Amino acid sequence: MKPNLRASSDRLLRRIEQLAAIGSIDGGGVCRLALTEEDRLARDLVTRWMTELGLVVSIDEIGNVVGTRLGVVDGPPVMIGSHIDSVATGGRYDGTLGVLAGLELVETLNEANFQTQHALAVAFFTNEEGVRFAPDMMGSAVHQGSLGLNEALATKDEKDASVGEELKRIGYAGDDAVATVTPRAFLELHVEQGPILEKAGTTIGIVTGVQGISWTEYRVTGTSNHAGTTPMGLRHDAGFVAAAITTEARHLADQLGGDQVATVGVTELRPNLVNVIANHARITVDLRNTTEDRLQQAEARMTQYIAKLATIEGVEVASRSLARFCPVEFDPDVVNLIETTTNECGYACQRLPSGAGHDAQMFAPNCPTGMIFVPSQGGISHNVKEFTAAAEIDAGLDVLTQVVLQLTE
Amino acid sequence: MKPNLRASSDRLLRRIEQLAAIGSIDGGGVCRLALTEEDRLARDLVTRWMTELGLVVSIDEIGNVVGTRLGVVDGPPVMIGSHIDSVATGGRYDGTLGVLAGLELVETLNEANFQTQHALAVAFFTNEEGVRFAPDMMGSAVHQGSLGLNEALATKDEKDASVGEELKRIGYAGDDAVATVTPRAFLELHVEQGPILEKAGTTIGIVTGVQGISWTEYRVTGTSNHAGTTPMGLRHDAGFVAAAITTEARHLADQLGGDQVATVGVTELRPNLVNVIANHARITVDLRNTTEDRLQQAEARMTQYIAKLATIEGVEVASRSLARFCPVEFDPDVVNLIETTTNECGYACQRLPSGAGHDAQMFAPNCPTGMIFVPSQGGISHNVKEFTAAAEIDAGLDVLTQVVLQLTE
Repeated sequence: MKPNLRASSDRLLRRIEQLAAIGSIDGGGVCRLALTEEDRLARDLVTRWMTELGLVVSIDEIGNVVGTRLGVVDGPPVMIGSHIDSVATGGRYDGTLGVLAGLELVETLNEANFQTQHALAVAFFTNEEGVRFAPDMMGSAVHQGSLGLNEALATKDEKDASVGEELKRIGYAGDDAVATVTPRAFLELHVEQGPILEKAGTTIGIVTGVQGISWTEYRVTGTSNHAGTTPMGLRHDAGFVAAAITTEARHLADQLGGDQVATVGVTELRPNLVNVIANHARITVDLRNTTEDRLQQAEARMTQYIAKLATIEGVEVASRSLARFCPVEFDPDVVNLIETTTNECGYACQRLPSGAGHDAQMFAPNCPTGMIFVPSQGGISHNVKEFTAAAEIDAGLDVLTQVVLQLTE
Repeated sequence: MKPNLRASSDRLLRRIEQLAAIGSIDGGGVCRLALTEEDRLARDLVTRWMTELGLVVSIDEIGNVVGTRLGVVDGPPVMIGSHIDSVATGGRYDGTLGVLAGLELVETLNEANFQTQHALAVAFFTNEEGVRFAPDMMGSAVHQGSLGLNEALATKDEKDASVGEELKRIGYAGDDAVATVTPRAFLELHVEQGPILEKAGTTIGIVTGVQGISWTEYRVTGTSNHAGTTPMGLRHDAGFVAAAITTEARHLADQLGGDQVATVGVTELRPNLVNVIANHARITVDLRNTTEDRLQQAEARMTQYIAKLATIEGVEVASRSLARFCPVEFDPDVVNLIETTTNECGYACQRLPSGAGHDAQMFAPNCPTGMIFVPSQGGISHNVKEFTAAAEIDAGLDVLTQVVLQLTE
């Protein structure tokens, strides 16, 4: 414990406020989809802050931005990282908290004129949300070599714009080679985005790992026909099939129980008219589980259900994997270190898995990695109402500071 | 029977072809939503044809266009009418067949220099499809006084444009007072839009009435939240509720059996993202039955189901009636006349109810009304593949001609 080094949530919250002004939407949230004009402006601001804090800024080929504060000795840095892109109706804490907490820690070290033994780096990674370009956690995946650079650059959005083109357009197609840096350790401070800490009355979540994620898009092709004149038995209704898959996803999660969650967040029908049976439907199914076996079980059940349903209704169903990540376990030593430090700091804490994907999981196979959660009010995230109290942010900053000081020793 | 008066499907099909060029879409279909630029162009063409055939053209306050051929005596005309607007992915026969068959009949009478005892009118009615503005059959409803003119003019589309404004913009806000003309009789020739005639191998459908129609829009408000971190039991998922209503509609139609059909043609989610639980959903439920009692039973079951579901899921569901028409029975004398005439003409026929709503149903309470169906290939309608063979159109024209000649005597 180095009690003389106390980061300030005041200053951090001012930065969060400033960043939230970029792409701000009604209700206090943000819309900063990856590689849009809003993302560019946010990147410019955070990069400027990095420079002002004396960090050596580098931009890699997938647009990840890393600001490094040199240590006493050469060698890979302890890295703190997260993201500053958002979903279309995002909150102001998701991702940005981790990045700006890193900058706050740097500023605290600067003010104390404290040089760490090992270098410290603060990073934000491209397209963590995966809303505009799939898969999510794209930048960190490329950074750690689990996703190929060219494949990522070639990914296109719904309007046929590629990641590579958009990186160039916003000026963040950097020169630094990817898949070359293995940090000494990786840490991410993040809002929980779920209700568990708040419900338990704990301030700090010691994240043990990340749920496995399986995203599949289904495109259903039936036959459009008149809603009044087509007997029920002669229908090939893409809209009905989309709905039946959606209710089955809920049913499956309820039946499997445990950590299993299932969500159909996207549903689009064509022609989408009140009196016409839909001939096309597009839906996405998001399945998550902390156990790979059970995740595969959920996937298999959905596949079987959909095949049977398609035959009965006489429709074609094409599927496409949008993202697939196995469950991740964080380094037990880092998990223990975070827990011990949290207890020394005197904050109520508990271990829990992350239900959401995070950049940290891309580092977990390659270097000691851990995550710190702070509570989300009402468990609400990916929503303009996302909120974490200043006292909880202070607690998270404290734990992050103390853990980083130990890892950089 | 007046065998010397034979209308020509050749000429009629040429007119159908010319009209289908306006708002044409891939696959041979049309997109002519009511009161759009395409509708204007189609109106201009049909109105020009009416004038060229010597009809006295009048346009009323809701934009219905009526072309009248005088008879020997004064008094109300026998009216043939239908519509020329379409759904977004419509076929070329739906509605236009009835209007252009009327013109073909007029041209046949002109060529034969045959003056009917009573006047004959050919009409097309505004916004029959109800896609852009609800309710459907708006023009004929206002024409026959079952829908108020001002209410209809004030109806707005999704972009907040009103029927009144759009009628003015396209030049079809006419002067003729509505709700003033009760025809001597009303006839509508239409494609079946269903598979029944084709399956039975009959050429002419004697329409006994029209199914009752109940259209309801539901707007579901839940809570948007992270798809990974929100336990299943804590969700308020508008997308799931929309899907459950959709599958219940199918279930209900299957259970009620008989003529009952149920369709959810519209489903829209917000924010419509793969990893965000939807906080808003909009769907439409289209229920139809030939019996008013059973239609009310279906409506009541949906209402009860939705109320219960909303409570369990913790969402708000607001409902709005988009259209509600009781089942209609056509005049037994007109139905008998059509059947007798069809038999005299030598065409295989059968009685059947209409599953779709039609302008004719607005006239049924006020004057002797009937409809003639010709087959739809594969039962397909509201689809670019909609098709009726020339021989079947000839049969329909024959029956229409002979019935009109008897009604105008």
